[in-house]
Amino acid sequence: MRIVVDAMGGDHAPRVVVEGAIVAVKEYGVEVILVGDEPRINSLLKKYKYAGAQISVCPATEVIDMHDSAAASIRRKRDSSIVVGLNLVKDGKTDAFFSAGNTGAVVCGATLTLGLLAGVERPGIGIAIPGLKGPCFVIDVGANIIPKPLHLLQYGIMAEAYTKYILNKSNPTVGLLNVGEEETKGTDFVKETHELISKSKLNFIGNVEGRDIFSGRCDIIICDGFVGNVALKITESAAEAMQTFLKRHLKSNPMAILGYLLLKTSFARFKKEIDYSEYGGAPLLGVNSVVIIGHGRSNVKAIKNAIRVAKEEVERGINQKIIETLSQF
Amino acid sequence: MRIVVDAMGGDHAPRVVVEGAIVAVKEYGVEVILVGDEPRINSLLKKYKYAGAQISVCPATEVIDMHDSAAASIRRKRDSSIVVGLNLVKDGKTDAFFSAGNTGAVVCGATLTLGLLAGVERPGIGIAIPGLKGPCFVIDVGANIIPKPLHLLQYGIMAEAYTKYILNKSNPTVGLLNVGEEETKGTDFVKETHELISKSKLNFIGNVEGRDIFSGRCDIIICDGFVGNVALKITESAAEAMQTFLKRHLKSNPMAILGYLLLKTSFARFKKEIDYSEYGGAPLLGVNSVVIIGHGRSNVKAIKNAIRVAKEEVERGINQKIIETLSQF
Repeated sequence: MRIVVDAMGGDHAPRVVVEGAIVAVKEYGVEVILVGDEPRINSLLKKYKYAGAQISVCPATEVIDMHDSAAASIRRKRDSSIVVGLNLVKDGKTDAFFSAGNTGAVVCGATLTLGLLAGVERPGIGIAIPGLKGPCFVIDVGANIIPKPLHLLQYGIMAEAYTKYILNKSNPTVGLLNVGEEETKGTDFVKETHELISKSKLNFIGNVEGRDIFSGRCDIIICDGFVGNVALKITESAAEAMQTFLKRHLKSNPMAILGYLLLKTSFARFKKEIDYSEYGGAPLLGVNSVVIIGHGRSNVKAIKNAIRVAKEEVERGINQKIIETLSQF
Repeated sequence: MRIVVDAMGGDHAPRVVVEGAIVAVKEYGVEVILVGDEPRINSLLKKYKYAGAQISVCPATEVIDMHDSAAASIRRKRDSSIVVGLNLVKDGKTDAFFSAGNTGAVVCGATLTLGLLAGVERPGIGIAIPGLKGPCFVIDVGANIIPKPLHLLQYGIMAEAYTKYILNKSNPTVGLLNVGEEETKGTDFVKETHELISKSKLNFIGNVEGRDIFSGRCDIIICDGFVGNVALKITESAAEAMQTFLKRHLKSNPMAILGYLLLKTSFARFKKEIDYSEYGGAPLLGVNSVVIIGHGRSNVKAIKNAIRVAKEEVERGINQKIIETLSQF
């Protein structure tokens, strides 16, 4: 299996991307094509003493950075790592694409270059957030900030396939993110979406609230990309903030420090459970290939895990499953 | 000072409301008028052995529950605790109103009954969320789910007054909640709001993201009531979820339990810092009196603290400060 990795994407690129790719090829036996600044990538490969054949480099002289406008940069920066990488996937030379770069540019580039799965109107980014009774798959967290009700229905259907075949949850339940549980609550957009999904074959439990991301009330939560993006960023930072709050209190006295030492393993496990770098990347569902989007702040572990996620999605044929699921609706 | 309290509002009403009011009058020296089911309230006062003169009861035979539509219930249930209570405030018999009941009904009832402050187009609910560098005041968290850019500007101005005169923060900074920091990001609504606020005298730092609720990047975050409501409910539940996650890991072995015992005081302090019942209630800013909205799940402590918040706002003349601040813009 060959996975294209945007070596220039993310706050710590290309260093952590190259390092993460090296760990991933060793651990998962995949091949990786690193796309980007060839001399820099080669010197990093040398620095980290990688001389194997599982990693190759594809040169791209431009970089789409976080401040570039998505659509304009995809059109103008034809030799950027994102555009060059997506073209490799389009030409059938590889199985999947991963980038921790400009999310808007990846969504726009993947849509234009790879096209959408039959029947899908807009792609959506989904992410499994660790909840009290297992992961909750939230979609969309930022691909599409002004969606139509039909887009949210399609997110629900794609998420059903993803949750079933990747997260191994049979008959997943779906909730619609709203400001209250009652059908009368919310904007016209949310009410129309509620009506549309109620008529579908999704295992729909109705409106849910922000707290249900953690509560385990449903396996999938659908929402527009604006709300989803805010929700995701709060969730990620809440975990970090809680750890900081807690540490401040722990350091207050010698007995507490002793207690902290005794609890070290427990804290490490807790940290791992809420650590988003363990989850790696978020799938962009609906495009005609496996595309994974990483956090801009991705570290080596996150890059490695994103490549693992890409591998699993390819192995399980997620897009074929999505097409089959869509055809049943 | 006399504060009207909706005795029928909240999941555990009237019991916890009566109990919270008893604690509050003893602790803060205020007078409370409990509005609602007179026989039940009197029997609870008797049960909790309160026979003082600081609490009086005003009968109201109807209750607006969580499933009632806001506007319709205010019009139809004229003898509900919310409508009767707000009329007491309107008639000038008291200084403030508190309810942990149906938020939509309180917003709608307060707007219709009390009217808005001069210059305010729509009221907004603000709440101080504990962040890593102090509280972040988020407004609106659910009064107005389809606002106009001007409403958000007014939320910013009202929040400036609140943050200055209630939270004692001079020259507070204001951020606009968006999906990215760049000016080009977001929906048309957010872009128009950005432009409008940029031209105002607010100490505006531009767009902020979900994570900035905790990061301390700004003192005030403004957003529409839909996103704000989702954000608030995630924040509240994240704190609870983190505690549950942590406890699961702590209980895994005997040394960890010993460590936990040594850390008990630290955990208690941590819990207090992230416990929303410590904050009591959220002010509904923009209406022509002090109105505090409590969480539906309010316990005795939350009720007590909400009454404290009401008292502080009256003492510091928050609405006069808001009118003065608005007039400077």
